[in-house]
Amino acid sequence: MGSARVFLLCCILAIFFHSVLCAKSRHFKWEVEYMHWAPDCVEAVVMGINGQFPGPTIRARAGDTLHIELTNKLPTEGVVIHWHGIRQFGTPWADGTASISQCAINPGETFVYRFKVDKAGTYFYHGHYGMQRLAGLYGSLIVEVTDGEKEPFHYDGEFNLLLSDWWHKGSHEQEVDLSSNPMRWIGEPQTLLINGRGQFNCSLAALFSNSSSSQCNLRGSEQCAPNILHVLPNKTYRLRIASSTALASLNLAIGNHKMTLVEADGNYLEPYSVSNMDIYSGETYSVLFTTDQEGSKNYWISVSVRGREPNTPQALIILNYIPTSASNLPNLPPPVAPLWNDYNYSRSFSSKILALRGSPKPPKKHDRRIILLNTQNLIDGYTKWAINNVSLVLPATPYLGSIRYGLNNAFDHKRPPENFGLNYDVSKPAPNQNSTYGSGVYMLNFNTTIDVILQNANALRANVSEIHPWHLHGHDFWVLGYGEGRFNEKSETQFNLKNPPLRNTAVIFPYGWTALRFVADNPGAWAFHCHIEPHLHMGMGVVFAEGVQHVKKIPNEALACGLTAKMLMNNVHK
Amino acid sequence: MGSARVFLLCCILAIFFHSVLCAKSRHFKWEVEYMHWAPDCVEAVVMGINGQFPGPTIRARAGDTLHIELTNKLPTEGVVIHWHGIRQFGTPWADGTASISQCAINPGETFVYRFKVDKAGTYFYHGHYGMQRLAGLYGSLIVEVTDGEKEPFHYDGEFNLLLSDWWHKGSHEQEVDLSSNPMRWIGEPQTLLINGRGQFNCSLAALFSNSSSSQCNLRGSEQCAPNILHVLPNKTYRLRIASSTALASLNLAIGNHKMTLVEADGNYLEPYSVSNMDIYSGETYSVLFTTDQEGSKNYWISVSVRGREPNTPQALIILNYIPTSASNLPNLPPPVAPLWNDYNYSRSFSSKILALRGSPKPPKKHDRRIILLNTQNLIDGYTKWAINNVSLVLPATPYLGSIRYGLNNAFDHKRPPENFGLNYDVSKPAPNQNSTYGSGVYMLNFNTTIDVILQNANALRANVSEIHPWHLHGHDFWVLGYGEGRFNEKSETQFNLKNPPLRNTAVIFPYGWTALRFVADNPGAWAFHCHIEPHLHMGMGVVFAEGVQHVKKIPNEALACGLTAKMLMNNVHK
Repeated sequence: MGSARVFLLCCILAIFFHSVLCAKSRHFKWEVEYMHWAPDCVEAVVMGINGQFPGPTIRARAGDTLHIELTNKLPTEGVVIHWHGIRQFGTPWADGTASISQCAINPGETFVYRFKVDKAGTYFYHGHYGMQRLAGLYGSLIVEVTDGEKEPFHYDGEFNLLLSDWWHKGSHEQEVDLSSNPMRWIGEPQTLLINGRGQFNCSLAALFSNSSSSQCNLRGSEQCAPNILHVLPNKTYRLRIASSTALASLNLAIGNHKMTLVEADGNYLEPYSVSNMDIYSGETYSVLFTTDQEGSKNYWISVSVRGREPNTPQALIILNYIPTSASNLPNLPPPVAPLWNDYNYSRSFSSKILALRGSPKPPKKHDRRIILLNTQNLIDGYTKWAINNVSLVLPATPYLGSIRYGLNNAFDHKRPPENFGLNYDVSKPAPNQNSTYGSGVYMLNFNTTIDVILQNANALRANVSEIHPWHLHGHDFWVLGYGEGRFNEKSETQFNLKNPPLRNTAVIFPYGWTALRFVADNPGAWAFHCHIEPHLHMGMGVVFAEGVQHVKKIPNEALACGLTAKMLMNNVHK
Repeated sequence: MGSARVFLLCCILAIFFHSVLCAKSRHFKWEVEYMHWAPDCVEAVVMGINGQFPGPTIRARAGDTLHIELTNKLPTEGVVIHWHGIRQFGTPWADGTASISQCAINPGETFVYRFKVDKAGTYFYHGHYGMQRLAGLYGSLIVEVTDGEKEPFHYDGEFNLLLSDWWHKGSHEQEVDLSSNPMRWIGEPQTLLINGRGQFNCSLAALFSNSSSSQCNLRGSEQCAPNILHVLPNKTYRLRIASSTALASLNLAIGNHKMTLVEADGNYLEPYSVSNMDIYSGETYSVLFTTDQEGSKNYWISVSVRGREPNTPQALIILNYIPTSASNLPNLPPPVAPLWNDYNYSRSFSSKILALRGSPKPPKKHDRRIILLNTQNLIDGYTKWAINNVSLVLPATPYLGSIRYGLNNAFDHKRPPENFGLNYDVSKPAPNQNSTYGSGVYMLNFNTTIDVILQNANALRANVSEIHPWHLHGHDFWVLGYGEGRFNEKSETQFNLKNPPLRNTAVIFPYGWTALRFVADNPGAWAFHCHIEPHLHMGMGVVFAEGVQHVKKIPNEALACGLTAKMLMNNVHK
């Protein structure tokens, strides 16, 4: 039977079987490089892909296989790309985490990320090595439902907003600053970017502001010119939002328009109507809004900092009602975000995010509970973050390979603690602020149900406890609940087992706890970490390894470093 | 026979046989990292080794074997170190050139450089990947004569001066600037450094200056405080000098003191007395000076820019006659260097550098002559340097490995040209300024005598021809002569075959040629390139490969990248 006939047959079958059999292979050739760019109207060096910043948006359909041939065009640095939210079933080596799932791709070399996007949703991708995310290595990844399938909501058009934060100091220097003794903190970002665009030292809404900021004078063709969302009146639009920020927690609002949350991290939500929404780094959402306002006006879409005392102006773009001229500025001031430290507001917002009826439910019971205390510490005078007093240091050999091949010298196999001291007072600075370095690998029994309790605590200084958005690779988890103070056995009664949302990122609020449940059903070694990039750089993460013995042959290209390279080159295992 | 007895016997033999048999192994553990430092009183990020900038000075004796265990502590960058001037007989994989002799060492990994320093002399080491030399990765390597041997000159004490140049813009951004279209030139350095120390925005000799520079006010404990050379009257001192500059050609003088050149690039010179000396990047010298001046005074040692219109202040340190107080500034103005563009002076200085009587002489005839035209070009609008119209692009697989194992896809095997067009006018910009990328590998027959004629030419702009100091790895060469204009058959009559100096670095003057001769007797793949780091970054180099089939087993660690890693991991060759 000729291949043309096979194809025809396949397509005929597809019509009957909802296109599943005709899922596409989508091929991309990407080159990562540094380039001059002016994300916020100030020229800087950014990491770009194929000359673009942010990187190209990938659009695919659920079931498609992506082949991204990534060539490293950096002069001396390795690179990887993590496909944030894609679970990588069967392809754990394609997760794009240096030192965990693969060796960093060397300058001049090409690595093919080949993986299936099995679930429709809003995703993004980003660098996962050093501070390459902060340097600008990110882009959008949008997975539409399979042909013939339908989303459980209706919309007439869609927009995509990729949010990030931007510093004028280069990422390399920021890395050195963070690793110095005494540590030099990177500070608040200079600018918030929407789709890689922001404005420094001027504001689109200066006329409404009491500050001395001047009105931006942009032609629209600048690299920093804001996107304009052109809409027709009386339609419903889907706004896809992803936050790739290195640090900032955000709040987004559309002037005069309500939004209805319908998707988060690639999972459907029970529709939830809000006038503004919090978005933490690593989270994605879809919201619907209806253009039911006065059509002769334009409206602000605003993005503001929350959770840290802001020192960064609000980012603004314009929602333009066609046929109103896009150059008419909205005649009302931009939306005002909730106070940065109104955590009651934040908790209330997050706890109302629930799974759409009919979504997969969590197993009723857990097989293992791991309680992870988040603390800021000192090691030999260096400021670090630690989990149960272990500050993560990544090894030269990726865990996936070293665990798969039993290379015991590749990392410290000491079991990290499952809990922390009974007497530890999470509301105060630790009496002993010292910590130790470690590998932070939790070996999970395959197909067991794991509860993780993320426990926040006081940081080094008294009366400081920060927000940390935790992101899990290779899985979605159910967010069973949020609580204040120290988690205890009674806290479990607060768990929502009825309609907890499935997410890949969940936040812990100051001094609070967050309970997650997931099934360790994806063979691989998976990062679980605070998505604030400088916090991860300072050790705030662990690794979950499960069913690694079931991982099929890892491509050699993912193993060409450290002890796995040594092993393969010495032909010890074959 | 017990090892103690062997040792004893060895030592006894050594007394008779000039210690040759007791040559030492010297072990070093180094960590390369970025750190905050203020080389010129302005805080910046530098590349340091074990927390030092410049890196530690190595002192060894001829015949010793060095073991340098280099651990890469950079967050995301590879690293290598080149041992400049060490010929690496039998250890071509230890030459420390990324993409040529080895794979860059990945972050977190350790590579052991193990090699013999067979010849006494003044050397240095430096990064040879991207622009890591400009970033500060360098240090001194001093090889003393074997116990019992004597230098062919006398001195009472010695000092070591490692010269470099320093920019306030970081090396990563400089790389991007150079690789941009249009190219952005790095400009003249902000500061010249002597042993990693210089002064920006102030001068030690402001009182003698007409400029507005202010007098430096330094306590002496600062990272940028100048070295002071304390000398006794009426003694002879050896001053070792090495230039690791990324760009600058230098001139050094000692106020009121003559200097006698006695060694260059690890080879003895016929003593040559000068009042100031030119030093090009990649060159090393030993000079003797006698403290025969008024002992109640101190004297300036000055380092100035030559060969480019200077925009960098002179670097100064103080020669202090004990017991005069070191804080007494010299009462005369610092030495004035020859005019930056007095190339007659430069040519005259260089052509008087001759080998010490009794030094090895060059073979009388060459087996092959390679003429290398140096041009500045454009490729798709990018500014490049090219050799015979080929601009060097380094491959992902190091040449040494790919040639040794016959991996034909690792680089473009097209033979680069041996000469350039008869009609090419070196005195004018090329009518066609386009060029092409290439691998630039010249395969040399083993043990043949190679003449290289480096031919300078006009750069892109009319009436511009720059100085280029060319450095050869793995060999010394004889500098047979310098000439002006285009080299032709008659030029050969000017060759000095009697006492040409052995060097590893030789300069070409504007619009001139320089003739070199060497014997291709060292199995390996060897870089030959302009030692101006941004010029090499822009393609100004070639590779000489000889006798690679005689190279013994290359350590796997040097091959763990590109196609050699692939080959070894796939177990294709064994």
